[in-house]
Amino acid sequence: MTEDLEWRVLSESEKERERKGRRKSLLLCVSTFIHCHCFLPTLSTQQHTIKPLSPSHAIPTPHSKFPSDSDTQSLFFSGRAERQKLLNQKGCVVWITGLSGSGKSTLACSLSRELYSRGKLSYVLDGDNLRHGLNKDLGFKAEERTENIRRTGEVAKLFADAGLICVASLISPYRRDRDTCRSMLPDANFIEARHHEAILIVFMNMPLELCELRDPKGLYKLARAGKIKGFTGIDDPYEPPLNCEVHVPEASKAIEIKQDGDVCPTPTVMAGQVVTYLEKEGFLEH
Amino acid sequence: MTEDLEWRVLSESEKERERKGRRKSLLLCVSTFIHCHCFLPTLSTQQHTIKPLSPSHAIPTPHSKFPSDSDTQSLFFSGRAERQKLLNQKGCVVWITGLSGSGKSTLACSLSRELYSRGKLSYVLDGDNLRHGLNKDLGFKAEERTENIRRTGEVAKLFADAGLICVASLISPYRRDRDTCRSMLPDANFIEARHHEAILIVFMNMPLELCELRDPKGLYKLARAGKIKGFTGIDDPYEPPLNCEVHVPEASKAIEIKQDGDVCPTPTVMAGQVVTYLEKEGFLEH
Repeated sequence: MTEDLEWRVLSESEKERERKGRRKSLLLCVSTFIHCHCFLPTLSTQQHTIKPLSPSHAIPTPHSKFPSDSDTQSLFFSGRAERQKLLNQKGCVVWITGLSGSGKSTLACSLSRELYSRGKLSYVLDGDNLRHGLNKDLGFKAEERTENIRRTGEVAKLFADAGLICVASLISPYRRDRDTCRSMLPDANFIEARHHEAILIVFMNMPLELCELRDPKGLYKLARAGKIKGFTGIDDPYEPPLNCEVHVPEASKAIEIKQDGDVCPTPTVMAGQVVTYLEKEGFLEH
Repeated sequence: MTEDLEWRVLSESEKERERKGRRKSLLLCVSTFIHCHCFLPTLSTQQHTIKPLSPSHAIPTPHSKFPSDSDTQSLFFSGRAERQKLLNQKGCVVWITGLSGSGKSTLACSLSRELYSRGKLSYVLDGDNLRHGLNKDLGFKAEERTENIRRTGEVAKLFADAGLICVASLISPYRRDRDTCRSMLPDANFIEARHHEAILIVFMNMPLELCELRDPKGLYKLARAGKIKGFTGIDDPYEPPLNCEVHVPEASKAIEIKQDGDVCPTPTVMAGQVVTYLEKEGFLEH
């Protein structure tokens, strides 16, 4: 049996525990305690102080049959707050959305580099690349595309919880899918700053003509030739983020990157816009 | 269209490109260059020197229709080597396997805390917890359980690539599934130290009787009562890692944690064993 079955049965077991009136031993309590603090750190409002360990904490318990430490303090683990302190930043997701050829990957690269130059840890999740690993079992049906976005969102959430600035770069043309990802993040809010949302949508608002002219992968040509059906911007819609359209930046974290006249910003300028935003919102300190 | 279709069509597009004799513009070359360095860092043997950026690098290109920087050096992004340098550690996966109740979660907690006390960044992936997010679409059929392990392995690989010490805690009873995860890691090997494997298997070799006595989730009771079928250790096998059995630690990274006489090691002692191993193998420095 794998841990799957454990999880399924746990709720039944817990119900039984309820019926029995919580007559469980101290051992079970301690075990549950460990589990909660270990794997559900974001659900806890308690902040733990991690004490530097010394060998004196490792007192063997020769009469115990079970792994345990005499000092319960040592059962605390390093949680999100500690990881953020270590990195001196707040974990979050920068979700870059836009047409094919709008410069998402370029921005992701530049942003990653710019953050590194400031000593900040980021990681880029790219939809295409995940296709070779985590999402390699997914095909190209509508529901599989949605699943691709969902899994990417779930992984991005884990990275944010780990304290990293996770840069997800996906066309993600539908509001529904982006909203699903956004809705994953609330319970990953920062314990110490609950007003923060942990996701920042970056909308690469570049004209279709420009993206098509750029066409780095030759996909627009194929789409125009009818060799690709359902291509975003050609015969399938791109739904721009609403919060950018209505210009209410304080309602939700979203920024728009667009041309200044007919001049596109350089990668460094684009990255600078995002970094400035992250800095202003306090993401670049713990 | 999502990025899925892009990926699928890319190979067709690339074939066409081959046929056309690589008559693509400089723009396309630069774009491909960015893409390769951005998302396939582990496939490149080249190590990049990241130069601290100054505003002078952000020179706009007013005559260009496309996002670009005049300084191609700035197209380099922060790769695995840079992230490891930032963290002063090597990204890897510590995969904890063992029976239910053998102390996997306890070790994961303790290890995470111990690493934090040394200023090292780790993240715990727990099979049960992933059930609530990434793997919530999976049921309990054999192939879905295997898929659960596979996805966890893929995510662990991403975390290792991000430079973290990823602690995956799953019963993972079958060698086949563990081998699948192990096989994912070779191309995540360290650029600067190719002799390193990026996965360390930790086998919690605790007697079934002890695990059943401990039974923190009450699952063994349910299994003995016939309420759970296919429970590892009761009516489904646990296949211990072979490399532990034959005691060839140098053949593959695997360590065994077991009782000393009838005394179990404390969490701190267990974590210490793993940390000592990681330190000895050079994972705790970049």
